[in-house]
Amino acid sequence: MDFEYSDKVKALREKLEAFMDANVYPIEREKYEWEHDHHNLWVRWPGMEDIKAKAREAGLWNLFMPHEYGKWSPGLTNLEYAPLAEMMGRVFGASEMFNCSAPDTGNMEVLARYGTPEQQEQWLKPLMAGTIRSAYVMTEPEVASSDATNIRTSIVRDGDHYVINGLKWWISGMMDPNTKMLIVLGHQPSDDRARHQQHTQIIVPRDTPGVEVIRPLSVMGSYHSPSGHAEMRFTDVRVPVGNVILGEGRGFEIAQGRLGPGRIHHCMRLIGGAQRALEYMANRVNDRVAFGRKLADQGSIRQDVARSFCEIEQARLLTLKAADAMDRHGNKVAKDLIAAIKVVAPQMAQTVADRAMQSFGGMGVSDDTPIAGIFATARYIRLADGPDEVHMAQLGKLKINELAGLPQR
Amino acid sequence: MDFEYSDKVKALREKLEAFMDANVYPIEREKYEWEHDHHNLWVRWPGMEDIKAKAREAGLWNLFMPHEYGKWSPGLTNLEYAPLAEMMGRVFGASEMFNCSAPDTGNMEVLARYGTPEQQEQWLKPLMAGTIRSAYVMTEPEVASSDATNIRTSIVRDGDHYVINGLKWWISGMMDPNTKMLIVLGHQPSDDRARHQQHTQIIVPRDTPGVEVIRPLSVMGSYHSPSGHAEMRFTDVRVPVGNVILGEGRGFEIAQGRLGPGRIHHCMRLIGGAQRALEYMANRVNDRVAFGRKLADQGSIRQDVARSFCEIEQARLLTLKAADAMDRHGNKVAKDLIAAIKVVAPQMAQTVADRAMQSFGGMGVSDDTPIAGIFATARYIRLADGPDEVHMAQLGKLKINELAGLPQR
Amino acid sequence: MDFEYSDKVKALREKLEAFMDANVYPIEREKYEWEHDHHNLWVRWPGMEDIKAKAREAGLWNLFMPHEYGKWSPGLTNLEYAPLAEMMGRVFGASEMFNCSAPDTGNMEVLARYGTPEQQEQWLKPLMAGTIRSAYVMTEPEVASSDATNIRTSIVRDGDHYVINGLKWWISGMMDPNTKMLIVLGHQPSDDRARHQQHTQIIVPRDTPGVEVIRPLSVMGSYHSPSGHAEMRFTDVRVPVGNVILGEGRGFEIAQGRLGPGRIHHCMRLIGGAQRALEYMANRVNDRVAFGRKLADQGSIRQDVARSFCEIEQARLLTLKAADAMDRHGNKVAKDLIAAIKVVAPQMAQTVADRAMQSFGGMGVSDDTPIAGIFATARYIRLADGPDEVHMAQLGKLKINELAGLPQR
Amino acid sequence: MDFEYSDKVKALREKLEAFMDANVYPIEREKYEWEHDHHNLWVRWPGMEDIKAKAREAGLWNLFMPHEYGKWSPGLTNLEYAPLAEMMGRVFGASEMFNCSAPDTGNMEVLARYGTPEQQEQWLKPLMAGTIRSAYVMTEPEVASSDATNIRTSIVRDGDHYVINGLKWWISGMMDPNTKMLIVLGHQPSDDRARHQQHTQIIVPRDTPGVEVIRPLSVMGSYHSPSGHAEMRFTDVRVPVGNVILGEGRGFEIAQGRLGPGRIHHCMRLIGGAQRALEYMANRVNDRVAFGRKLADQGSIRQDVARSFCEIEQARLLTLKAADAMDRHGNKVAKDLIAAIKVVAPQMAQTVADRAMQSFGGMGVSDDTPIAGIFATARYIRLADGPDEVHMAQLGKLKINELAGLPQR
Repeated sequence: MDFEYSDKVKALREKLEAFMDANVYPIEREKYEWEHDHHNLWVRWPGMEDIKAKAREAGLWNLFMPHEYGKWSPGLTNLEYAPLAEMMGRVFGASEMFNCSAPDTGNMEVLARYGTPEQQEQWLKPLMAGTIRSAYVMTEPEVASSDATNIRTSIVRDGDHYVINGLKWWISGMMDPNTKMLIVLGHQPSDDRARHQQHTQIIVPRDTPGVEVIRPLSVMGSYHSPSGHAEMRFTDVRVPVGNVILGEGRGFEIAQGRLGPGRIHHCMRLIGGAQRALEYMANRVNDRVAFGRKLADQGSIRQDVARSFCEIEQARLLTLKAADAMDRHGNKVAKDLIAAIKVVAPQMAQTVADRAMQSFGGMGVSDDTPIAGIFATARYIRLADGPDEVHMAQLGKLKINELAGLPQR
Repeated sequence: MDFEYSDKVKALREKLEAFMDANVYPIEREKYEWEHDHHNLWVRWPGMEDIKAKAREAGLWNLFMPHEYGKWSPGLTNLEYAPLAEMMGRVFGASEMFNCSAPDTGNMEVLARYGTPEQQEQWLKPLMAGTIRSAYVMTEPEVASSDATNIRTSIVRDGDHYVINGLKWWISGMMDPNTKMLIVLGHQPSDDRARHQQHTQIIVPRDTPGVEVIRPLSVMGSYHSPSGHAEMRFTDVRVPVGNVILGEGRGFEIAQGRLGPGRIHHCMRLIGGAQRALEYMANRVNDRVAFGRKLADQGSIRQDVARSFCEIEQARLLTLKAADAMDRHGNKVAKDLIAAIKVVAPQMAQTVADRAMQSFGGMGVSDDTPIAGIFATARYIRLADGPDEVHMAQLGKLKINELAGLPQR
Repeated sequence: MDFEYSDKVKALREKLEAFMDANVYPIEREKYEWEHDHHNLWVRWPGMEDIKAKAREAGLWNLFMPHEYGKWSPGLTNLEYAPLAEMMGRVFGASEMFNCSAPDTGNMEVLARYGTPEQQEQWLKPLMAGTIRSAYVMTEPEVASSDATNIRTSIVRDGDHYVINGLKWWISGMMDPNTKMLIVLGHQPSDDRARHQQHTQIIVPRDTPGVEVIRPLSVMGSYHSPSGHAEMRFTDVRVPVGNVILGEGRGFEIAQGRLGPGRIHHCMRLIGGAQRALEYMANRVNDRVAFGRKLADQGSIRQDVARSFCEIEQARLLTLKAADAMDRHGNKVAKDLIAAIKVVAPQMAQTVADRAMQSFGGMGVSDDTPIAGIFATARYIRLADGPDEVHMAQLGKLKINELAGLPQR
Repeated sequence: MDFEYSDKVKALREKLEAFMDANVYPIEREKYEWEHDHHNLWVRWPGMEDIKAKAREAGLWNLFMPHEYGKWSPGLTNLEYAPLAEMMGRVFGASEMFNCSAPDTGNMEVLARYGTPEQQEQWLKPLMAGTIRSAYVMTEPEVASSDATNIRTSIVRDGDHYVINGLKWWISGMMDPNTKMLIVLGHQPSDDRARHQQHTQIIVPRDTPGVEVIRPLSVMGSYHSPSGHAEMRFTDVRVPVGNVILGEGRGFEIAQGRLGPGRIHHCMRLIGGAQRALEYMANRVNDRVAFGRKLADQGSIRQDVARSFCEIEQARLLTLKAADAMDRHGNKVAKDLIAAIKVVAPQMAQTVADRAMQSFGGMGVSDDTPIAGIFATARYIRLADGPDEVHMAQLGKLKINELAGLPQR
């Protein structure tokens, strides 16, 4: 047991921090304003590709891809990546600059693990090069999608093709003009297969006829342009049978492995967001005077800072432990810890940002600091990949079974 | 002691509810979308004046103005108005339809109580007719404005005029094209007056030279168009001496009386927002099935609903009690209860809306329900009129003094 | 709607306060120490009867019994009694001095409402005179008793008698030497009656053969001597058929009416406890200096006081509203509000007492103040009459049904 | 970074668990009842010495003493000891069986680090052998002792002796008949020394004339017999000058090093308590049926279990990190993490035990499970070594200074 970052990680953190100091923080505000101006809706910020090129050149690229993926990976473990993801999470959207952003990361892992050589050549290569983006098309408006057995978009075999029909929503990244490929989870019922083998994942090129965006969805009033979240319809969308990933009925098998890393990446980034909110708060209260006393000298402010420090540090440790468990035992065994951080980290980040907002007065809800954005992101992530409540229910069940089986002492 | 609404109130509630059913709920979505489209920034939604005319005709007009203002008032007490404000608060921006929206309400009270006949003729009449809007210009970016003694915008006498210079921000309603009049709180130091008599309130017509909007401020990513919150500058703004309200150095005296009702109106409306979020949640969980069971049958959901009911009901009772105390004893005596609801109601509404959002899954953060908007409003109001922390500090001090003075039993 | 106590209530409060100043606070500590000395286990504190006589003489007697019970009642409504119960609740065990203590109060209401003239003569009269005490025998160790259909102690007819067999626990008051009568809820299955008509309530004299105390139960380490909570066994206990209350199979009908008032009395008293804890806290922080500053001047302390005031006041209002609803509409219609206060008030009192304890440092957990006792009582009441969770589940269900039935606006 | 226990620790945990299964759990109840019977007040449970002998023989002895103390230490780091302390913490008072109980542990560290050879021979040896116990005499009733500069018990030089006078309270272990030695912190003002060098620590044999116990203090109604917490008086207590530890005016220097380990031991043990409460809860809800469904299948119960798991795991990781920091950087550098766990762990244990109590219904507050005891202990520890609020204030100040000094990104 050892709670210090390795030298390898320390060096990478320094490198990443220097990169962000030079290339990310300076343009953060400009990019934010550009992307929030409705006149630029669904257009990518012009400076993005330049920063991506620099990051790639600096070797700060695809760091999320775990070492077990061999040639596809720059060689880090989840545990090593975690503190880097945390640092990227300090700036909304920065992970894309390092080709580490959802949903591409999950899609790349799926293709690296399960893709055929042809699928990898056609889609994984450009994704890892950052020349295209992608979407993961699972959630549906008409059913409780956190129980994925409810998914009802149909995938029907027709000769050498599959035909896809259905409604989807909250398809993140779908609005991005760079998005060229979708991985779709659909229903492919078969009496020959067990209950959890009735769904299939399949690759759909973005420009396939019948793929239609109905509307973008807003998150707490923001469209998250240019990536955006779409409500969309599949109408008789035909793709070749070779586009199936892993095989018919194996959609959940893929999904289970896919969602764990995605959740942990979100949590890592939110810890970075929370840490940044706390740093802003510390600076604010250290400067501000009210009722004849520096805010930093008020007991209630100190409590808010102390509590925030404790909560961030605890969530960070839990997330690192989950990453370590994924590295050692695999995503399936680590599912209790992955559920735990999904419950803990976003709520923690919301709470810490909430306190930081209060310390700024009216400025706290404005866009003059990144805090309101961190707050809104944390709030949103509490629903992404299933509401907290779903994860708590699963985690609670798991732990009751585990603990009730121990000898009672 | 009696916890039932009077027949008068019941009748008014029915009337208001019928009005909203006929005129407000049906256009809520259209208005929301119109106002959130950046192409319409700072333009008033075209349907507004028509609804205002209907409300005025129906006698649902200026209900906020307490009966003690005589001819200016439709005759309700704060206690009678509270449940009506609650109902208006169910729809963001609806209070304006009934000419009951901030900051006009506070400005109208100030002019009705302290205005000269000339000031009333020129400004109060059109405000009460709803033909113009106004702003209350107090908060400054460079000082902790919750401690109003910090306000430093200067008001200097120059012959028959005052000259105003300074920076202000979070000036709500300032962006509204209908806003024609500002009440400005500025610093007018004088050795002849006590420490709390160094500030003055003064009327400034919107179109006075030197009144300049620097930029609109966003709230959790939204501009609240068309009313908006401005950062603004006063540069050598000259107004006649007759524009002073009540007298030099009496700014705080006015402010203290003004802020109480404003706070209670916010709280009343947020209780309506929270109630609506809970109703949406109840409908949602009654319809939705996940993991083989209706959400409404899950213990955790029932707890969320039960807690929300308890919290709403308690905040409502406290707000009504505060209104009753204002009616009986005046805003000054009621200041503990006003501080109490300012701390309680917005946090309660945020919490209830937070739970409701979770019950909706991804839809909860979108604009497909009013819940995310209620959440964001509640979050914002926790900072408006001073952060919760300032009110808690004052309330705590007040109660310690009061209770420590009792015989200890 | 009106939030001020009536003159009648104000006068009674003054009278009660004067009585407590003269007779209760002065002996509080002596009584506490006497009762917590194990050498006095299950012996009544010698001073009790004298104070009861004085209270009876002063007309502060049986105030809990609502006016609708006619000759049995001193004439107060629940709403009028509430603030008096609150005052009694400031001192642990004081309610007994006014013959207003559980479980006697509930048993008296049952007998006043449903008892035959013989039952009233034999048991109600001495209970109301305070010459005997009683127990309410419902909860069982082997089943989840919050779901009363689980109760399985059997009541079997045998000629002119019923024979009772079963195990019970948490039978409050059972250890008191003055307890002479038990009301027992037992199972009397019959195919002729509906599912909620399978249980019966029956009077059992304490000295009936077969009534056996197994052991006293401790509450957070205290035995609550002399009243105490017993685990007990009924072995072939025979009582005459005339001892049934209301009729066979009508046990739940009685229970439903009985439990509401009991819950509200607990809540009223806990509000008094919380209020007292806050008053102690205010005095403490007003006197104590640490790190060069009076505790009362620290922002975190003021927040604790402010929050406590808000929470007490809200719980008080909700409890008063519940009392008002019971008076107007009956215990059955008021069941949502009764559930609400059962959830709200004990948790609130625990939280307020918890804060007060912190403000006292080590002294806070000792018996040098009444606060630790208030904390422990509140903690205990969260389980008495069913855990909070049961009440939340019922309240949540009720509100979902009610709100989901409204037109959705 | 590595989140797995080392093989050394795993082996020790197995050994300790086996020892507890054989010797501790089986007598837990008997010991509890014996010690809570007032007839045995201040008498040691007769079985204790036998278990201590076995533990010593098994090499499970003095494990708390860190390896840097050389010959006094069995060779573990704080990080290695932490999971063992956690296991001991599952049973109230078990740490004494392994000679790892406060306040002896802190006193032993003080003597091992600062004691003269004579002091070590006379007092450290028997303490480490477990043949005597000791007390640490710091807190005073008349001052806020969390600010130790307030301590006013006087130590005055008189020839070859010091004369001690003053009042103390919350002197844990003082009531234990085995307690033979006290370390007293007193005031020894001198103009020659700086502000934090006005206090001295001095050894006082228990039987020195003038050492007088005024009364035992109860904690939530329990005396914690036989160890107990005393209020006591020092009246002209004379000890030789050789009894001073480290030197005059160096009392705070000692105290700072002493309190860190004590705090972390408390936290480790409370994590064990919380873990045990959760295990009891899991078993309970897995067995119990209410309203037609197993408690374990209710969403609210699963949430309670899930939250508890997350909170325990996070507090455990933070505590382990603090232990690691103490090992690597010393108690002084680790003071932020020590403050953090002092705030986090006891509150966490109180919360987890609170939930577990609810799951047991009435049984939850009784002594039929260890949960109510865990709850009361956690509640008490939130005040021991200074209230949470003091630690939060210090931690908040520390973190504001640290974070406000970073470049703002």
